[in-house]
Amino acid sequence: MMKLPTAITLCEVGLRDGLQNEATILNTQSKITLTKEMIAAGLTVIELGSFMNPKAVPQMADTDALFFHFSEVKNVELRALVANKKGVERAVNCGCRKIKLNVSASLGHNLANINMTPEESIARFAESVELAEKSGIEVSGSISMPFGSPWEGSISLDAIQSIIDAYLKVGVREISLSDASGMAVPNQVYTMCKHLQERYSDVKWWLHFHNTRGMAMANILAGMQAGITHFDSSLGGLGGCPFVPGAAGNVASEDVIHMLDEMNISTGIDLVQIISSAKKLQDWVGHETDSYVLKAGRSKDLIK
Amino acid sequence: MMKLPTAITLCEVGLRDGLQNEATILNTQSKITLTKEMIAAGLTVIELGSFMNPKAVPQMADTDALFFHFSEVKNVELRALVANKKGVERAVNCGCRKIKLNVSASLGHNLANINMTPEESIARFAESVELAEKSGIEVSGSISMPFGSPWEGSISLDAIQSIIDAYLKVGVREISLSDASGMAVPNQVYTMCKHLQERYSDVKWWLHFHNTRGMAMANILAGMQAGITHFDSSLGGLGGCPFVPGAAGNVASEDVIHMLDEMNISTGIDLVQIISSAKKLQDWVGHETDSYVLKAGRSKDLIK
Repeated sequence: MMKLPTAITLCEVGLRDGLQNEATILNTQSKITLTKEMIAAGLTVIELGSFMNPKAVPQMADTDALFFHFSEVKNVELRALVANKKGVERAVNCGCRKIKLNVSASLGHNLANINMTPEESIARFAESVELAEKSGIEVSGSISMPFGSPWEGSISLDAIQSIIDAYLKVGVREISLSDASGMAVPNQVYTMCKHLQERYSDVKWWLHFHNTRGMAMANILAGMQAGITHFDSSLGGLGGCPFVPGAAGNVASEDVIHMLDEMNISTGIDLVQIISSAKKLQDWVGHETDSYVLKAGRSKDLIK
Repeated sequence: MMKLPTAITLCEVGLRDGLQNEATILNTQSKITLTKEMIAAGLTVIELGSFMNPKAVPQMADTDALFFHFSEVKNVELRALVANKKGVERAVNCGCRKIKLNVSASLGHNLANINMTPEESIARFAESVELAEKSGIEVSGSISMPFGSPWEGSISLDAIQSIIDAYLKVGVREISLSDASGMAVPNQVYTMCKHLQERYSDVKWWLHFHNTRGMAMANILAGMQAGITHFDSSLGGLGGCPFVPGAAGNVASEDVIHMLDEMNISTGIDLVQIISSAKKLQDWVGHETDSYVLKAGRSKDLIK
């Protein structure tokens, strides 16, 4: 028997990482509709948006409005991506109770983006974490490109660990490894996850895979075999690769849930409802997205 | 470390299972060009076509001509799918030296197709095997839908084993498990492959996955972890699902080779040449196919 967890928690990132890569700006009411549907379907972690400059990321301009709308929701973790203290102030103001910080494990990438080393970036996070904690907001962190970067190619374990250490130093103990460049491969995912879980036994790990080169599902399998139980996915496979125009996006939520259902690994999520929401989202963005189950249906549906 | 083989052999099925699902009939010269390129790229097993009734499968009408053309090729296994003795006679005549028989593990499927039980089908293979062996043609067999069928849903291990036993009885010791309905999931693939390899230690196993529900790469990973070292794949991801119009086809050769390259698992195949051939094939069939690496390029290509 393959050694696998019996239950997995998914975080839906379609409304953030997915829509951020779309030309279409979905209106707030549509986002509310999808979020309600996803909560009804059983999702317990949803990334609603980000508190960035609306001029830079217009797709996320209504993140505050979404958090205001859902401020009474219980038992569902609604989170937002935050870049700095100004973002935390917005989070405090609109009732967001969980934020995610981000830094790249790739020195070249982080320097190109904000002219800081990863450690300098995280040192700046201290004030964000402080304000968040004072305001009762939980903080998680993500690390981009631990599995490979367009700048350096492979990333050393030392570079990754120094970022994890920096996160721990500012009090962040929930960390996501994000393969936004789609360069991760299964044996690497397995080895790295095994190692990091042993070295940092009190960290809660998430994995975030893009299906850029078709390996996301295999990487999720490898992550589960290494004992990881928290994964990001995106409704309809919405998203893209910031470095490859036209490439596939995040792994599709319905594809992941379908595989887990068929493997008898529990997610607590109703796949039929998710497929219906994913179709709606695909209609709204106005083009086909990288989803298999939306095209082929569930294996179950095929049975006469 | 994840337990994995160090080397994998791929069989290219684009010219058969891929083209068979295409409206475009590729001309013989184009097939010859692609085959030459694939041999030059390092492929050592290629399914050139099938000896079926050309009226039923017009895309494969020139299979004899292809085998005539390549009759002098050494060190590359060129094989064809064969349905009956008539097909073997064609194989003998055109110099084909390796054939593959096929039967479904799904009783409903086999009855619907040819109104015979799987065991009755294989009993009929005896005359084909006899003629082939007398003519120095090697015979392999494939089993459709061992991982699930649109007719019965799950297929019992007993049903699969009775087919394997029937194959062994007529002297076929090389067997492919073919997930043409795209219903296989990784933990099932792992468990079944482990079991079958233990029970039938002298069988040479192949796995054939379609990416219908996005799980082909994860299934290949699971197969490798179970010790399987022979997999089918299709240039450009050409093909389809016979039961789901518009669904994704066979797993793309370039996606599989890319993943194996990046995992340091040897295939002996030059990925750059394969990408070039896959692009050519995509141009010739005139539409995008389900290939990731054709869209995104290799991970290596991304590195600045």
